Amino acid sequence: MDDLKVNKRLIMTPGPVSVDPRVSQAMSNSILGQFDYEFVDIMNKTMELIRKSFLTDNQWSFPIDGTSRAGLEAVIASIVKPGDTVLVPIIGRFGYLFTELVKRAGGIVHNIQKPMGEVFEQAEIIEALDTVKPKVLAIVHGETSTGRLQPIDQLGHACKERGIYSVVDAVATYQGMIIPVDEWELDAVIGGAQKCLSIPSGITPITFNDRFSEEINKRKRVELGIRSNESTEQDHFIRSNYLDLTQLQDYWSPKRLNHHTESTTSIYALYTGLKIALTEGIEARAARHAYHQEGLKQALKALGLEIFGDETNEMKMVICVNIPDGADDSKFREGLLKNYGIEIAGSFGELQGKIWRIGIMGYAIEKQNILTFLSIFSLYLAHQGVQNLNPEKAIDTLLAYYA
Amino acid sequence: MDDLKVNKRLIMTPGPVSVDPRVSQAMSNSILGQFDYEFVDIMNKTMELIRKSFLTDNQWSFPIDGTSRAGLEAVIASIVKPGDTVLVPIIGRFGYLFTELVKRAGGIVHNIQKPMGEVFEQAEIIEALDTVKPKVLAIVHGETSTGRLQPIDQLGHACKERGIYSVVDAVATYQGMIIPVDEWELDAVIGGAQKCLSIPSGITPITFNDRFSEEINKRKRVELGIRSNESTEQDHFIRSNYLDLTQLQDYWSPKRLNHHTESTTSIYALYTGLKIALTEGIEARAARHAYHQEGLKQALKALGLEIFGDETNEMKMVICVNIPDGADDSKFREGLLKNYGIEIAGSFGELQGKIWRIGIMGYAIEKQNILTFLSIFSLYLAHQGVQNLNPEKAIDTLLAYYA
Repeated sequence: MDDLKVNKRLIMTPGPVSVDPRVSQAMSNSILGQFDYEFVDIMNKTMELIRKSFLTDNQWSFPIDGTSRAGLEAVIASIVKPGDTVLVPIIGRFGYLFTELVKRAGGIVHNIQKPMGEVFEQAEIIEALDTVKPKVLAIVHGETSTGRLQPIDQLGHACKERGIYSVVDAVATYQGMIIPVDEWELDAVIGGAQKCLSIPSGITPITFNDRFSEEINKRKRVELGIRSNESTEQDHFIRSNYLDLTQLQDYWSPKRLNHHTESTTSIYALYTGLKIALTEGIEARAARHAYHQEGLKQALKALGLEIFGDETNEMKMVICVNIPDGADDSKFREGLLKNYGIEIAGSFGELQGKIWRIGIMGYAIEKQNILTFLSIFSLYLAHQGVQNLNPEKAIDTLLAYYA
Repeated sequence: MDDLKVNKRLIMTPGPVSVDPRVSQAMSNSILGQFDYEFVDIMNKTMELIRKSFLTDNQWSFPIDGTSRAGLEAVIASIVKPGDTVLVPIIGRFGYLFTELVKRAGGIVHNIQKPMGEVFEQAEIIEALDTVKPKVLAIVHGETSTGRLQPIDQLGHACKERGIYSVVDAVATYQGMIIPVDEWELDAVIGGAQKCLSIPSGITPITFNDRFSEEINKRKRVELGIRSNESTEQDHFIRSNYLDLTQLQDYWSPKRLNHHTESTTSIYALYTGLKIALTEGIEARAARHAYHQEGLKQALKALGLEIFGDETNEMKMVICVNIPDGADDSKFREGLLKNYGIEIAGSFGELQGKIWRIGIMGYAIEKQNILTFLSIFSLYLAHQGVQNLNPEKAIDTLLAYYA
């Protein structure tokens, strides 16, 4: 068995993406015990950074020790009890994931759906809230499978007025655009690590408000021996221990009740990644993502490619292009990776083989990398036999954009 | 908000413990996409290392992306469906955790229990298997809360003969002693990261055999649209998506079905940690733990402390001592940490305030650290006002042991 040797990559997918060396360095700090006073201090500071990152005053802003999917499941499994109704609008693959998670929790899902590449008008969703009258609205903010940004700024308020809990999957948009959780009156929001925040996968920042906390705490499982009536609680307690937000509240609060053994290095990564992001500034960081996305998009059009979907509802951290005639999806991506160490993504379901998704996420997104990517991508496409491309015009366009 | 700054520690608790710098260095390698051919190769090699670490040929040997508790929950939540009976012998705190996890899964727990500090004769457990006739036996191998090692070498065979599934929590013993999974005929075993393997918490290696796999796959949730009869499956599918072992099998096999975004850096850590452990050799590593544990134990006796519990059933990776008269549990441990950067652990429940637990786990366990620890610990105990100690004799004993 060889020593670990990893070759250089320029990852231009919607995650996982490259990590800032300052994050890697932070992760090599000494392990601390989870009740070490220094670690408790870092936990507290990390919560404060998470609050700032979500523009919220929510006390309950802490990470889940697992990948984004664990964060989504923790929120859904805690708020949805068997028989609860959940409205899940679907514009792509991650709406299906919410659907799956609700069904696992025993909830009843009502889906509304748009063709791949479109988003909902918020009025359509609010109308569905009035028809379905769900307990929970679970909605994806940035649907990376189609590159669409679902507008959600009015949904939190609409839910609150109706006594519905809003749950937002902001895994792909977190730290790549501004998500003002309090201003938008969202009840629970799940961010992501390995996308625009650009730290390693394995930890997931979430936030939820007191209204959400009160509701999930009705299901709090009192420890053995204290519980008065097991039979009535049997149907209602949260099915997971590891992803039980009410237990995690006791861990991520002055109570510090022992739960799991917090992943020290992931906390170091999260702390440092958030500090880097907030030092750059959420607005500046959002502007950086949008700036490079726009430049590369213009250049890809100049190259001769077609952009997939309506640009009025596109995510600013992904570019979706139609795969041009003459290029084979898998063969092209494999060649790009094996020859140049550059990775782009295909898509899922009905879009598989039809579009490529180019991620514009986090640390690696700066002029030199984007220009390098465009040069290699353009010429390798031409090499693969795609006709009517104009690589020189593409580069002229991007250099002019940056000038 | 300051930059992350972590002071030096000598962690002498039963985890999380210090990490080998080679592991930290491996974690700073470039992120790879989860379907990058190089990453797939690392995943395959990691599975092979996990097999070797458990001395098993089990195909199903892969990590869970979460802390040890996530690994325990993944196994329990996958094998225990509502109404299933599980026998959980309790010799300490982690037996209660198994109990809790089974109840969350809707299972019916039968506990048998020993006073804290004792272990079961295997015959007692086998007798209980015949009385209770459970579907599953869930048992803790190394119970760190009391420092006891529960003998289990005959239990796998006894379970198999009776058509019962054996599940073993080997979180604390994994890579600190030899656990021959195939020879002991164990069906599912959960290892640990942040203990004797000595990598950061956040990933958990597990292994299970085909017999176990067949059983959990009866609960496999077929994707939406393919399922023929939702109502009958509704009661039986695994409640978690994130911790569903049948889905993880599709991810950790040539199918490579997309599930979560694997934690790249945790895999780098696990790969490297296992490589270090297997290069040392499982037997040599077990011998190293036992060697230093014995030396320090003799020295602590020479110092004048009493060892807690029966030495015939002690774990070789923990020393439990009775807290001597004159020492205040919290105050002493806090002083040791704040003055010297050395951490030892208290215990839980009825043993809280009565014993200290000194971990002998992983990378940091070598002569220089043990001698340093003993010197500081002895003199600081004397400084705190504990009478009738003999620090010089303690050091003489340990130096003589090492000579």
